[in-house]
Amino acid sequence: MAHIALGVDETQFPGITGPLIYRPETAKPLDDLAEVLLRGPNTLTRGERELIAAYVSGRNNCTFCCGAHSAVAAAQLTEGMALVDQVRDDLDTAPVSPKMRALLRIAGAVQVSGRAVTPELINSARAAGATDMELHDTVLIAAAFCMYNRYVDGLGTLAPSDPAAYAGAAERIAKFGYRF
Amino acid sequence: MAHIALGVDETQFPGITGPLIYRPETAKPLDDLAEVLLRGPNTLTRGERELIAAYVSGRNNCTFCCGAHSAVAAAQLTEGMALVDQVRDDLDTAPVSPKMRALLRIAGAVQVSGRAVTPELINSARAAGATDMELHDTVLIAAAFCMYNRYVDGLGTLAPSDPAAYAGAAERIAKFGYRF
Repeated sequence: MAHIALGVDETQFPGITGPLIYRPETAKPLDDLAEVLLRGPNTLTRGERELIAAYVSGRNNCTFCCGAHSAVAAAQLTEGMALVDQVRDDLDTAPVSPKMRALLRIAGAVQVSGRAVTPELINSARAAGATDMELHDTVLIAAAFCMYNRYVDGLGTLAPSDPAAYAGAAERIAKFGYRF
Repeated sequence: MAHIALGVDETQFPGITGPLIYRPETAKPLDDLAEVLLRGPNTLTRGERELIAAYVSGRNNCTFCCGAHSAVAAAQLTEGMALVDQVRDDLDTAPVSPKMRALLRIAGAVQVSGRAVTPELINSARAAGATDMELHDTVLIAAAFCMYNRYVDGLGTLAPSDPAAYAGAAERIAKFGYRF
């Protein structure tokens, strides 16, 4: 049970979906931000951006967001959930490109603190081919999930523990996006 | 100098303003979120909501956001900067209402992790008169500043060290808001 009365059946509207229904005025910019960051025009694929979201959510121990965005990433990556699991288990050995590994390291730093992003991390990503816009979006995706994760868990919302519970919503999001 | 080329003179556009100009597609929902959370219709005053933003930004060591939102809070609180400083120095003894103290404690927990918000913290705030909507908005303001702070510092943007540097912008924000 969430800490506040969200006015929905949480088994039907788990995680962030309850608070989004509860407060439509804030849901609008929250949905818009996810849509532009994770699905808008970008040189990073949708799968790559969802991978950043899943990685940060995992590091924040946010069961709902990690489950949801792992599933959305898997639905949009040719390597599927196997790659998501490898990245989350051990970024150093996961079979991602040097550029994605460097961007995920930046995302991991942002999860700790904005101040943990060093010139060395930036330079490594740039040397691996990352553009300024990709660096910008990686920092903002990671920062945004430090918000979404805290929103979801700070309100004590319900998070299904079975990863399979996220697959249906993931297919829908991969197809239709984050705006209701 | 920021980690990426923002295309602006950072002395004129410090902190978050450079990245907002650099990426208008993400600036829109970021500005919209700040506007509804900090200035939209609410039973918490604008000064009280800015105080939450300043408090969280201070705990995230974000010089720019803490300077900016301390100044915006001060401009909208009858007790001015003295109260902001007291809250940031020692929440336990600062002369705020029991409800604001309890909400700021929740915000402090969110800064650490969403999972740090306990039923005890929620119950204390409720006993002091906090409504569900106030609890929701406190959690989301705190969570949002965990994003804004990481965005600003993760990109290594310029932060004026003199608190007076924020006063002009604060007066403008207090009057006209966060939308450009």
